[in-house]
Amino acid sequence: MHNDLIVIDGLQYSNWNRTIFEQLRQGGVTMVHVTIVYHEQIRETLLRISEWNRHFEMNSDLIMPVKSADDIRLAKQLGKVGIMFGAQNCSAIEDDIGMVEVMRELNLMIMQLTYNNQSLLASGCYEAVDSGVTRFGRQVIKEMNRVGMVVDMSHSAERSTLEAIEISERPIVISHANPSSFHAAKRNKSDTVLKALGESGGLLGFSLYPFHLKNGPDCSLNEFCDMVANTADLMGIDHIGIGTDLCQEQPVSILEWMRNGRWSKDMDYGEGSKSDADWPRSLSWFKDSRDFPNITKGLQTRGFSDNEVAKIMGLNWLNFLDDALQPKL
Amino acid sequence: MHNDLIVIDGLQYSNWNRTIFEQLRQGGVTMVHVTIVYHEQIRETLLRISEWNRHFEMNSDLIMPVKSADDIRLAKQLGKVGIMFGAQNCSAIEDDIGMVEVMRELNLMIMQLTYNNQSLLASGCYEAVDSGVTRFGRQVIKEMNRVGMVVDMSHSAERSTLEAIEISERPIVISHANPSSFHAAKRNKSDTVLKALGESGGLLGFSLYPFHLKNGPDCSLNEFCDMVANTADLMGIDHIGIGTDLCQEQPVSILEWMRNGRWSKDMDYGEGSKSDADWPRSLSWFKDSRDFPNITKGLQTRGFSDNEVAKIMGLNWLNFLDDALQPKL
Repeated sequence: MHNDLIVIDGLQYSNWNRTIFEQLRQGGVTMVHVTIVYHEQIRETLLRISEWNRHFEMNSDLIMPVKSADDIRLAKQLGKVGIMFGAQNCSAIEDDIGMVEVMRELNLMIMQLTYNNQSLLASGCYEAVDSGVTRFGRQVIKEMNRVGMVVDMSHSAERSTLEAIEISERPIVISHANPSSFHAAKRNKSDTVLKALGESGGLLGFSLYPFHLKNGPDCSLNEFCDMVANTADLMGIDHIGIGTDLCQEQPVSILEWMRNGRWSKDMDYGEGSKSDADWPRSLSWFKDSRDFPNITKGLQTRGFSDNEVAKIMGLNWLNFLDDALQPKL
Repeated sequence: MHNDLIVIDGLQYSNWNRTIFEQLRQGGVTMVHVTIVYHEQIRETLLRISEWNRHFEMNSDLIMPVKSADDIRLAKQLGKVGIMFGAQNCSAIEDDIGMVEVMRELNLMIMQLTYNNQSLLASGCYEAVDSGVTRFGRQVIKEMNRVGMVVDMSHSAERSTLEAIEISERPIVISHANPSSFHAAKRNKSDTVLKALGESGGLLGFSLYPFHLKNGPDCSLNEFCDMVANTADLMGIDHIGIGTDLCQEQPVSILEWMRNGRWSKDMDYGEGSKSDADWPRSLSWFKDSRDFPNITKGLQTRGFSDNEVAKIMGLNWLNFLDDALQPKL
């Protein structure tokens, strides 16, 4: 069954190279949302985009840029992996509302309003106080709605997330996180948030990052699929997908950049700790993109119908993006 | 006849507002190449683009962005004025070959390699020594050819221009200048350059900026049309068009920015002088875009056939852009 599916991964951040692109294709991935920036500001974001342009030029037999939801279908048809750009923080627009449209023209399709910390737009999930969506944040959400850029609240705090769902005129996503009820990590989401997300037409991508899973790297495929089933009951089968948070071949320095950006002189360990500062060990059943068929199989074994598996593995993301990426200019 | 024409202006740099857009439409202009930047570097260029996005949003009944040559035909069909972005210097790519494609993705369709001075790419027409196209310049021309960004040598020196014509695998333009044989200004072009330009499939846009005309602001329409006729004989009727260099409602401070950028503490007067430092007086028969029909009429009176007039007023530009804007990715 797996090879016929449209498979969409709602987030990866790897140290991209041809081998990783080949693994994506081998794993039957139709489209992957790739993080191109965290704390990079505008000029640095353009650098990252130009590096991707070079990837597209050198690997045009394997990958293609996603400039609309139709490009995902085109990628499937051509047997290529579609690449959709996203930002995990809002540094890429600096303090300038006009940069939302400029970045969208450069195919930045999805942006987190915060990355763990307070941003100019909202509060991150690690802040002591969650003050909700800011004045600038309201304007940016409106502009993202207009140009067809998806609001992502994966690393945001509870109140900020609920407010973003409320303020946004278009459904939003949590591209990579799991329910707190499954594993009580700061990055995971309460049932309140997940219910509101589902009811508003939004989408949750299940994370396979060990820090977001019960028993960490030892979480079993069965436990993962149980979580999917429980969340389907909570949110509805149409509002869940995959967002692996897979980070391949990245040195610890990149993990430190993600966690510390330029904001701290003290080392912040994010979801890790001083004694556990490195990347987590991989799951045995999901080491890299070649293991996507394991998830498909796991969901089938757990009792999901073929139709439901297809939705979770990619169709829900595709349906969501079909509308969400359309500009309303 | 004028209203049926596709009218293309190969360069304007005005202090854009709704009145000026209305004048363009009243003058029957189908598409205008607008200068969005001179010495602005990347971040500032994005600011200019976001200001244009706002113009498009606020004046969508009058203007539309040109993202391909077909958009020029669409503008004609919709009765709107197409806006094509261009840069008069190469500051918008800084020192980064990757920014050529990034800027092209933002619809920067045409770029001068130099503006009067030596640039990282070539020599400007005001330099004492013209050292030709630089090493970086060769790489940038190749990349502009690949992504479909037009090379413009209007403000470049002779040798640099001849080398650019030779190096570029696609025809280039001189979007706004006149023959030196008509008026010996530093900015105007030798017959050698114009012949090489025509033979390579390139295009010259005739300037209506008084400093580029015999008798300056007192140049008559007849004299202008004589120049057009003589240049048609030199270059061929398919290789000439209009590039008015019209600058409306710009303060002297903008003229000073064009001439001095950030490179000089001494005031440079460009084509003017200390005693003639301001914008030149307008031509009586071309004050703003509403006067385009005067040019059409002048060319008809001078004896050009309707077919030839159509080519000069826009069809040559359109044919040129039909190929030149196609990426060869």
